[in-house]
Amino acid sequence: MHFAKVFNIISVLMLVIAGFMLVPLGIAFFNGEPVCANAFLQTILIVITIGIILNFITGKFKGNHFSARDGFLMVTASWVIASVAGALPFFLAGTIPSYTDAFFETMSGFTTTGASILTEIQTLPKSILFWRSLTHWLGGMGFVVLTVAIMPLLGIGGVKMVSAESPGPTMDKISPKITHMAKMLWIIYLGLTILETILLLFGGMSLFDSLTHAFGTLATGGFSPKNASVGHYNSAYIDIVITVFMVLAGINFGLYYRAIIGKLTGVKKNTELKVYLAIFVIATILTAIPLIGKVYTNLAESLRYSSFQVASILTTTGFATANFDIWPAFSKYILFALMFIGGCSGSTGGGIKVIRIVTLFKQAITEMKLLANPRGVFSTRMNGVTVRKDFIYTILGFVFLYIMLLLITTAVVSTAPGGYDLETSFSTAMVTLGNIGPGFSLVGPTMNYAFFPDYIKWFLSFAMMVGRLEIYTVLILFTPYFWLRR
Amino acid sequence: MHFAKVFNIISVLMLVIAGFMLVPLGIAFFNGEPVCANAFLQTILIVITIGIILNFITGKFKGNHFSARDGFLMVTASWVIASVAGALPFFLAGTIPSYTDAFFETMSGFTTTGASILTEIQTLPKSILFWRSLTHWLGGMGFVVLTVAIMPLLGIGGVKMVSAESPGPTMDKISPKITHMAKMLWIIYLGLTILETILLLFGGMSLFDSLTHAFGTLATGGFSPKNASVGHYNSAYIDIVITVFMVLAGINFGLYYRAIIGKLTGVKKNTELKVYLAIFVIATILTAIPLIGKVYTNLAESLRYSSFQVASILTTTGFATANFDIWPAFSKYILFALMFIGGCSGSTGGGIKVIRIVTLFKQAITEMKLLANPRGVFSTRMNGVTVRKDFIYTILGFVFLYIMLLLITTAVVSTAPGGYDLETSFSTAMVTLGNIGPGFSLVGPTMNYAFFPDYIKWFLSFAMMVGRLEIYTVLILFTPYFWLRR
Repeated sequence: MHFAKVFNIISVLMLVIAGFMLVPLGIAFFNGEPVCANAFLQTILIVITIGIILNFITGKFKGNHFSARDGFLMVTASWVIASVAGALPFFLAGTIPSYTDAFFETMSGFTTTGASILTEIQTLPKSILFWRSLTHWLGGMGFVVLTVAIMPLLGIGGVKMVSAESPGPTMDKISPKITHMAKMLWIIYLGLTILETILLLFGGMSLFDSLTHAFGTLATGGFSPKNASVGHYNSAYIDIVITVFMVLAGINFGLYYRAIIGKLTGVKKNTELKVYLAIFVIATILTAIPLIGKVYTNLAESLRYSSFQVASILTTTGFATANFDIWPAFSKYILFALMFIGGCSGSTGGGIKVIRIVTLFKQAITEMKLLANPRGVFSTRMNGVTVRKDFIYTILGFVFLYIMLLLITTAVVSTAPGGYDLETSFSTAMVTLGNIGPGFSLVGPTMNYAFFPDYIKWFLSFAMMVGRLEIYTVLILFTPYFWLRR
Repeated sequence: MHFAKVFNIISVLMLVIAGFMLVPLGIAFFNGEPVCANAFLQTILIVITIGIILNFITGKFKGNHFSARDGFLMVTASWVIASVAGALPFFLAGTIPSYTDAFFETMSGFTTTGASILTEIQTLPKSILFWRSLTHWLGGMGFVVLTVAIMPLLGIGGVKMVSAESPGPTMDKISPKITHMAKMLWIIYLGLTILETILLLFGGMSLFDSLTHAFGTLATGGFSPKNASVGHYNSAYIDIVITVFMVLAGINFGLYYRAIIGKLTGVKKNTELKVYLAIFVIATILTAIPLIGKVYTNLAESLRYSSFQVASILTTTGFATANFDIWPAFSKYILFALMFIGGCSGSTGGGIKVIRIVTLFKQAITEMKLLANPRGVFSTRMNGVTVRKDFIYTILGFVFLYIMLLLITTAVVSTAPGGYDLETSFSTAMVTLGNIGPGFSLVGPTMNYAFFPDYIKWFLSFAMMVGRLEIYTVLILFTPYFWLRR
């Protein structure tokens, strides 16, 4: 383990976070929010001071070695430290009086979950709401923004980091020039954010609302500065714009890069993309059918609300335009089933991810072929190539650990004094581990997470992080194999 | 495909079923239930007639070829035909006026699920109740009783059948002399049934009640001739006897065989057995804690009820001594988590099975070791031997299909007019696919399945069969690979 190197990078991350806090600091000054300005200033000073000291200490140690193990530690530590620091403005400004709540909200932001402990949102200071949404945007591109884009600048090859933290199993290296690629991905992310912001401005949203919603969309986060989430605007145009951008944010960003450099064949042949879009369309239709005439007057309106909610849950964003918790059983069920899927690999979406589901499905078909013809030779193929066996093993382990964590998280939630119904406990586990945000029953789209006891909030913060960092990255730190030198 | 051979075996199965129906026929005569006697007599005549004709037609074709594919077809067809025939007495006697309901009840019996559409049980004729419990016992040992014990007598080597239908992945051949082994397993099954019956008689149960409960226990079925299930007797002694025998029924019957022939080392080293017993003990304690002082007065009483319910759900039996649907959240949750596990391979228990869970867990650990030390060589071991890779693949496919079917079944249940809460829909899927019986909310231990629309009852019958026959056996019949000659 190269602790010096790991914490040297983290010291840089701290300075970057402090840098981004200058924006809400500016808003606080500009908007006349002195308490918030003070909170941001204090936080920036604390973070910069510690960052510089840490950088000074760790910088003394030379050497460029950086192993996969260092990567796991660094990634997990980054999210923890970003949340510890990012929670300070909420806490110091007094908008979230409990540090537990502030940490939960910030971890929910950086993990792009969007689960909130706030009961009243739109009366909060603008600078605070902006920072809340900015944590989404910063956390959103995870690896791409914070790690791949910054690491190479520090002279560290990012290839090993890809395997440690890429959001989902990316099977093919998109480009050997990882620094170039990281910059391109960052530009794509930024470009889509600007595009959505402009389109929302056309819909009559203020610049502030447009920006914060674009942050929440591109990061598949789900924090909205409005109590009623996107439902607040009650505008078909805004619903459609956000639906489209949620779907776009759930697509592998590497495919945009490919499209830009002209490699369209790879995009067209991408199995995951096809399945993802098919799921979106089919789920939208299935969800809409029971709504017609019962919840909404006609098919068009039903499709508007169902497409928004399907996109929101499938991409693990968590915005809401309706209280889907009271939708007819079948519509509600489709959303429940989508919670098991999630976005595409290489997107900002969470969950198990489409590619894993597709691989497992194909593997199950291969197994059945083999059972029917025991002497046959079959292999599982993806994008026209045979899937490597160790890749299938990794997925197997992932899905198993995911289900184990679902059950463990449900168990922890169930220990609350008085307890909750099974729907609340289980959906809380699903929407935190899958980085979705709103669930059913007591954590439904019109509810919030304020009522949970503190120890559950800390555990859920942990669950959000484990889910965001693809399970293995965090859990491996708890195994003896990781710490024992072989 | 060797249809003649397949249906020749099925014709023998029909004669066997008709033979077993002589017992309830006798009870009906003896107990003065002329309508039931008539129903059994009619059924026996119909089944024997068709069986003899089928045997005559199929017997003309010579040849001893019997492929794995024939095995899949035969096994699935056996369960369907047994249920079609077994439902007739309920229907003809008028005790279950709807054939859909009668088929559901019989499939629930033969699959050892124990989900019932009956609202009033204990006033039914004895002969009908006996037949209901007998379907459990007959279906219970699945492969061992109906297939392995009968097939070899017909001169067909059962080895291929083992891979087609053994309840759970048995990794090592227990004995090359499969006919001998099948007889031994049958004797063990019979012996345990007799032993439990005697012990229940000592507890003050009538012979009828003792026998039917022993049938339900050994088969991990769950049908009770009493409305309040085992809770009816309100006897600590009876609770303990049934708890012990449920746990015994959830153990791989091959281990009893090994113990009898003196190979105790294999039993002691069996990983699955150890994990299974550990789960039982830990889950019993965890379930009991929230019950103390809240539902029951002291620790002993809490343990009595929790151990019974944990054994009942873990082994997928489904007997009840308490309405666990209203237990504290954490206790209820533990039972929910157990529904994902199930009994041991080679037992009469259903569900995913302990060995699959253990293998996946170990594989996930292996993956983490590999991530921490990318150059290391690691393998997943079970009972001291390295697990074959293709075995892990089969488990992967199984667990994935299991989860898919859970979601599909929940979806189908959700389509009911008016719909149900998510807890009802999801737990219905879990307890039918896992062959458990009672679930939560509307299908809780004090409820029944009568309220479901007919099409859902048919689908749930299908789900029970798919779950009982280890998923692949049935699903493979729906793939083109199965029917296309290569």
